Amino acid sequence: MSVDHRSRRDALRTLLVERELDAILVTDLLNIRYLTGFTGSNAALVVSARDADGDEDATVICTDGRYVTQVAEQVPDLRAEIDRSSAAHLIGTFSGDVLAFEAHVATFAEHRSWTESAPSVRFEPVSGLVEKLRMVKDEHEIGLLRAACAAADDALAQLITRGGLRPGRTEREVGRELENLMFENGADGISFETIVAAGSNSAIPHHRPTGAVLASGDFVKLDFGAQVGGYHSDMTRTYVLETVSDWQRDVYELVAKSQAAGCAALVPGAECAAVDAAARSVIDDAGYGELFLHGLGHGVGLEIHEAPGIGKLGTGTLLSGAAVTVEPGVYFSGRGGVRIEDTLVVREQGPELLTLTAKDLTVI
Amino acid sequence: MSVDHRSRRDALRTLLVERELDAILVTDLLNIRYLTGFTGSNAALVVSARDADGDEDATVICTDGRYVTQVAEQVPDLRAEIDRSSAAHLIGTFSGDVLAFEAHVATFAEHRSWTESAPSVRFEPVSGLVEKLRMVKDEHEIGLLRAACAAADDALAQLITRGGLRPGRTEREVGRELENLMFENGADGISFETIVAAGSNSAIPHHRPTGAVLASGDFVKLDFGAQVGGYHSDMTRTYVLETVSDWQRDVYELVAKSQAAGCAALVPGAECAAVDAAARSVIDDAGYGELFLHGLGHGVGLEIHEAPGIGKLGTGTLLSGAAVTVEPGVYFSGRGGVRIEDTLVVREQGPELLTLTAKDLTVI
Repeated sequence: MSVDHRSRRDALRTLLVERELDAILVTDLLNIRYLTGFTGSNAALVVSARDADGDEDATVICTDGRYVTQVAEQVPDLRAEIDRSSAAHLIGTFSGDVLAFEAHVATFAEHRSWTESAPSVRFEPVSGLVEKLRMVKDEHEIGLLRAACAAADDALAQLITRGGLRPGRTEREVGRELENLMFENGADGISFETIVAAGSNSAIPHHRPTGAVLASGDFVKLDFGAQVGGYHSDMTRTYVLETVSDWQRDVYELVAKSQAAGCAALVPGAECAAVDAAARSVIDDAGYGELFLHGLGHGVGLEIHEAPGIGKLGTGTLLSGAAVTVEPGVYFSGRGGVRIEDTLVVREQGPELLTLTAKDLTVI
Repeated sequence: MSVDHRSRRDALRTLLVERELDAILVTDLLNIRYLTGFTGSNAALVVSARDADGDEDATVICTDGRYVTQVAEQVPDLRAEIDRSSAAHLIGTFSGDVLAFEAHVATFAEHRSWTESAPSVRFEPVSGLVEKLRMVKDEHEIGLLRAACAAADDALAQLITRGGLRPGRTEREVGRELENLMFENGADGISFETIVAAGSNSAIPHHRPTGAVLASGDFVKLDFGAQVGGYHSDMTRTYVLETVSDWQRDVYELVAKSQAAGCAALVPGAECAAVDAAARSVIDDAGYGELFLHGLGHGVGLEIHEAPGIGKLGTGTLLSGAAVTVEPGVYFSGRGGVRIEDTLVVREQGPELLTLTAKDLTVI
């Protein structure tokens, strides 16, 4: 499905009209990418509510001279101005009275310089308008998420097939190989520094790979993701090397059961806190609630962590089209831990699983 | 040389006293790292001018529960509070009247929530205080920069020795191999996505590696860097594959001459704009000034691009201990281009070169 930036801008215009705002200055680069397709490192965008019908005459993007060609190619449907000061330039040419701005993005100093340079404009702070739209993915975005998840799935399968997960290797070697394999399988970036945590390190939720050597009997926890077209996948699998002990089997089955319960709770209209509780109660009931140290999941998209947060204190409800992770974990300090994580899309007919790697307890 | 965070905080206190400020709330994570050594992803720091002598009772760092152990290990010399809201928590416990804050870092929304929650505190905007200190590196920092540059030098040497730069390979393959070699040679991160630009792509200053295939007679431009301990190296070398033509030799020698002139101009007290001019005039005089599309260089340290900027419009002077790049380039659109870049430290006795890879025209 081809990308439709115009529809996204029109959805933003609807939010502007609801709030009786004429126009918004967007300065968050990912929000600009979402609304226009532009990927340069300097830009500002004014979206006018007036442009909901017909030509988008009052909607304009600004970037600097490095991006003259790029902005013409990526944003053929909008007027582009070229000026290094991007936001300040658009404010200088703004003809309206009230200009909303992203108060969670603009710094105090930026806002002050804007008000000083354009005293006739009233700047109206708003927060999270575009992020609210970004929570619900369109089919183009889901296609990119699917491709990112496939690159990660394929990389992990190849790592295992070629014997990359074996006693004697270091966490760092495994992490680098997994990252290289994601690139070979279509990733154009990685989502974040790959977590490889072996043995007792697997009890550290966000361990950075070290020179620690994988050993027989270890849990090996892999938390990693690929980027495709700016969209991030996120997946965790925990394996056991060569021999599995009873406590490992028990904790693995518990986390797997919790994870399945969390995935099953992903229905449109579900409260985020209730989804967390669906998975957490499984671990609570087993008496290990204190060892599940973090929230259940988070939105994924142009950022690896974005709205909605799915945790004990999560607010709001899931909408159809939200892409989220479900990732319970139980961590025995000094001994080892298990986390199992998928990326899924909330759908009317039940969640669509994007990370397809098997989740049965696997001894390698 | 061991790291001395206390001296850095005392230098900041001197700046506070000069501005008649009692205390500053630092929220930039790299500034916090610089001042304390803390590397977590959530923190705020209040540095009190009162603590210039004796114990640092009124200076306090705050982070969340994930970092209880880490903050105790990394910041043993300061009181640490644990609260997820970090900055808001420190403001809530602040006992003074006036609190400076980083106006170029705090968002408009953050500042507004702070003033609403602590109406008795007067928030005083300041910009760039810690960044000003960070411009001059201490010997501990220079040691890390030297190690980062060595990892990049060693990686490039091994890439060439093992025949990694040869016709038939793709830009992307070369980039990934060079990045892997930096990790094998001591890097704990890369500075930025490695630029590998072959043939006509070498005329694009900041080309992203593609599936383009290296060919005999191509310029191949490599712009890359390693991170060690949070410090970034930055180096560009341009090679020719197998056969060199006269125009390539001419443009290479011109850029090399310009680069040498830029390096020679790195003396304490030099105006940044004059350093740019020293290198740029060589290219201007040859009639190719319009093909040198960017500034001459930039500061490097905890960020890949930091103060000072060295360009036509650069303001300020270089201080002894500044770490900067010198990177002139000449780009013939559709044909090819050359950039040569080093990382150096400004010293009283003349610049110290940190990137040691040879710069003679090299046909591989």
